[in-house]
Amino acid sequence: MARRSAVNVWCLGSRAVSLLYGSSLRPLHTSVCNASSKPKAGFRPEKVAVVTKTTRYEFEQQRYRYAGLSEEDLKQLLAMKGSSYSGLLERHNIHTNNVEHIVKSLRKEGIDVRVVKRGEYSEEVVRWANAIISAGGDGTMLLVASKVLSKDKPVVGVNTDPERSEGHLCLPVRYTCAFPEALDKLCRGEFRWLWRQRIRLHLEGTGINPTPVDLHEQQLSLEQHSQAHRITTMESQRRTGTLQESFIKPSLLPIRSLNEIFIGESLSSRVKLKSFNPHVNLLLHRASYYEISVDDGPWEKQKSSGLSICTGTGSKAWSYNINKLAEQAVEEVLKIGKSQAGLDIPLNREFIEKVTDKYNESLVFSPDDSRLFYSVREPIVNRVFSSSRQRGFASKVCVRSRCWDACMVVDGGTSFEFNDGAIATISTSEEDQLRTVVLEN
Amino acid sequence: MARRSAVNVWCLGSRAVSLLYGSSLRPLHTSVCNASSKPKAGFRPEKVAVVTKTTRYEFEQQRYRYAGLSEEDLKQLLAMKGSSYSGLLERHNIHTNNVEHIVKSLRKEGIDVRVVKRGEYSEEVVRWANAIISAGGDGTMLLVASKVLSKDKPVVGVNTDPERSEGHLCLPVRYTCAFPEALDKLCRGEFRWLWRQRIRLHLEGTGINPTPVDLHEQQLSLEQHSQAHRITTMESQRRTGTLQESFIKPSLLPIRSLNEIFIGESLSSRVKLKSFNPHVNLLLHRASYYEISVDDGPWEKQKSSGLSICTGTGSKAWSYNINKLAEQAVEEVLKIGKSQAGLDIPLNREFIEKVTDKYNESLVFSPDDSRLFYSVREPIVNRVFSSSRQRGFASKVCVRSRCWDACMVVDGGTSFEFNDGAIATISTSEEDQLRTVVLEN
Repeated sequence: MARRSAVNVWCLGSRAVSLLYGSSLRPLHTSVCNASSKPKAGFRPEKVAVVTKTTRYEFEQQRYRYAGLSEEDLKQLLAMKGSSYSGLLERHNIHTNNVEHIVKSLRKEGIDVRVVKRGEYSEEVVRWANAIISAGGDGTMLLVASKVLSKDKPVVGVNTDPERSEGHLCLPVRYTCAFPEALDKLCRGEFRWLWRQRIRLHLEGTGINPTPVDLHEQQLSLEQHSQAHRITTMESQRRTGTLQESFIKPSLLPIRSLNEIFIGESLSSRVKLKSFNPHVNLLLHRASYYEISVDDGPWEKQKSSGLSICTGTGSKAWSYNINKLAEQAVEEVLKIGKSQAGLDIPLNREFIEKVTDKYNESLVFSPDDSRLFYSVREPIVNRVFSSSRQRGFASKVCVRSRCWDACMVVDGGTSFEFNDGAIATISTSEEDQLRTVVLEN
Repeated sequence: MARRSAVNVWCLGSRAVSLLYGSSLRPLHTSVCNASSKPKAGFRPEKVAVVTKTTRYEFEQQRYRYAGLSEEDLKQLLAMKGSSYSGLLERHNIHTNNVEHIVKSLRKEGIDVRVVKRGEYSEEVVRWANAIISAGGDGTMLLVASKVLSKDKPVVGVNTDPERSEGHLCLPVRYTCAFPEALDKLCRGEFRWLWRQRIRLHLEGTGINPTPVDLHEQQLSLEQHSQAHRITTMESQRRTGTLQESFIKPSLLPIRSLNEIFIGESLSSRVKLKSFNPHVNLLLHRASYYEISVDDGPWEKQKSSGLSICTGTGSKAWSYNINKLAEQAVEEVLKIGKSQAGLDIPLNREFIEKVTDKYNESLVFSPDDSRLFYSVREPIVNRVFSSSRQRGFASKVCVRSRCWDACMVVDGGTSFEFNDGAIATISTSEEDQLRTVVLEN
């Protein structure tokens, strides 16, 4: 029974919010075709790695198995929360069947296939493969892309649960069940290459070795403890004379962003104040405080809910959702404008929809565009902080953190510490492109 | 030396983001006066508690003292991060002097004064006092208000660092150094009472005892561990027969919100996947997924960046920042509208400013209004999720969580677990008002 419970929309492969955001109802694929290039010959990889997502069913099983619950207990637990065990199992089976279909199709063509679970995917797999297929949703695509640093290794996304996943970065959904057709077109050169521009990150001035900090471990310890950890590191660096060095030299991080970099304060717990109810933790949501310089322009202090810097690919994801307007807001602006201008023009539903659509479409740009697009989320304007442009294009964006406990989040999935004093330089380079495939629908 | 480094803007008393957001440059106090009421006689409290904020200087001292650093080390550490030790000390002294001024003024009138640090503030202090003064910024005011559940106990906010703090919920800044004048007016009845409406929360259906979970402790353990903890609780409840009970009965929480309730997924760490660089934690930012019913209307599934439900007081805080538009966006909408309508009207800077101001002003309503205002932050519209109204007024809002690791954040400071299956009913009641003072400037 195909139960369309909204709960079953959970699709672990696309959990990265940068993907859940922003796939509008209007097809945006068409704008992409102009920017890609026709291959000189067919594409016939000998070795293909298929990277598969973890379904929610698998995830729930794993976590409750750890707690020692039986399958029957799992069913009841989910039922109590309003989730459906059979629904989850169904989505899981759909995904698994689609993966089998892909693998069979590949092997039938004599291609050497390695099926790799999300958790087993590594640089070694990337080196081994001539091409990589992401079998899941957009989240799986982001994961797959994150380990491909070369612009020559093709990555293809197949949406293994089209009913639940947007599959924005994947092939058109019809190829999910008709994969031999996709293979055939690849073979005959009836496709286009699309080199999606990605973002690179330089980090400096943190005062500590700019290795991405294990945020999980940081959350494991008290705020003071982690501070003490940092100080100990600094103390030892000072003694060995390496402190100044790590302070000065900008480090290129071994990571490329396909969608966006988001900078903001994390939710972090503070020292518990003893007079509070011990069960109620003082959890402060702070504004993000930083300085920003666009294209080597003057530094500007800003306070906001965070800063997003995206690629053309990412302009349809989280960035889109930060900037898009609802019809309700557009209608209000037009009403006020009409009133202020003393005009007597009708504002019918169709007109408002049209203006809203055009506004939102203007936020999207081509995946192979080498520019960055920065947006300030919920800027704070008061006596101290001003804001010139809330968003715009750039070749380079520098951000200096003035945050307590901030992080730089790459593609909604990987996080780097970005605290007071750290400087990030965000830019693009041609060698950072990701080679992907565009098939006609 | 008065160093106006932006870093010194850090004002720990107003860290709660719901306050840092939204104080526009235009005075909004005037709209408040119409809604308050003139006292029948002067106000002469015999016992006054003065609750003081923690300055950033004190905070830094405390945390580095824990790590064993000397004052000299502290200076160097801050300098390296671009902060200023002397600047922090200066702000600290300004605050302390202002507190002394307030306390002296009170005692001079023969009033019994208890000075209570933020961390020592308790229900016992509230019971003892006839009136409570918050000496800090807006964050301190929120804290003070959070323990006052009666609508009869007056709370007065004094902004002890006007240069750095917005003091939106505090008396006009001139009374900070001229507190005897304020006392005098209170004494002679030359003020107005303002009863600020607050929000109440009912929680049910969580499947576990709806005690606010110590999020700090939750972050201390692995995801599975905390899940196991919950399951153990459920197991024991099932055995003792109390499970169904906690599932059914809605609980009125012992907390009232002065600004807003914000519901959203927290940043939480997931199980580390072994093939990843152990330093890079997979930190997923997920969209918040829930169902919402406004004024007992039909349930609607939504996916967004979070849901804000605010009071009139809060309509100038975080909610304001979620909904306000930058001139850049308004200009773009008007340009497109003009083009679509085929009009030839000039869109000069003044016109755009005017429309932007009017739009943003429409987001603000009176603190003593009994209505709630809900806004969906960054709604996701795709094949599965639709969104009718992005914001609006209501008397009651019910939210059913479909989130993994969500929380309900009250006034940017207190957090409650709000996971899959939990139902929150958000409403107001006359008895939830907070009695505050309005003095003419």
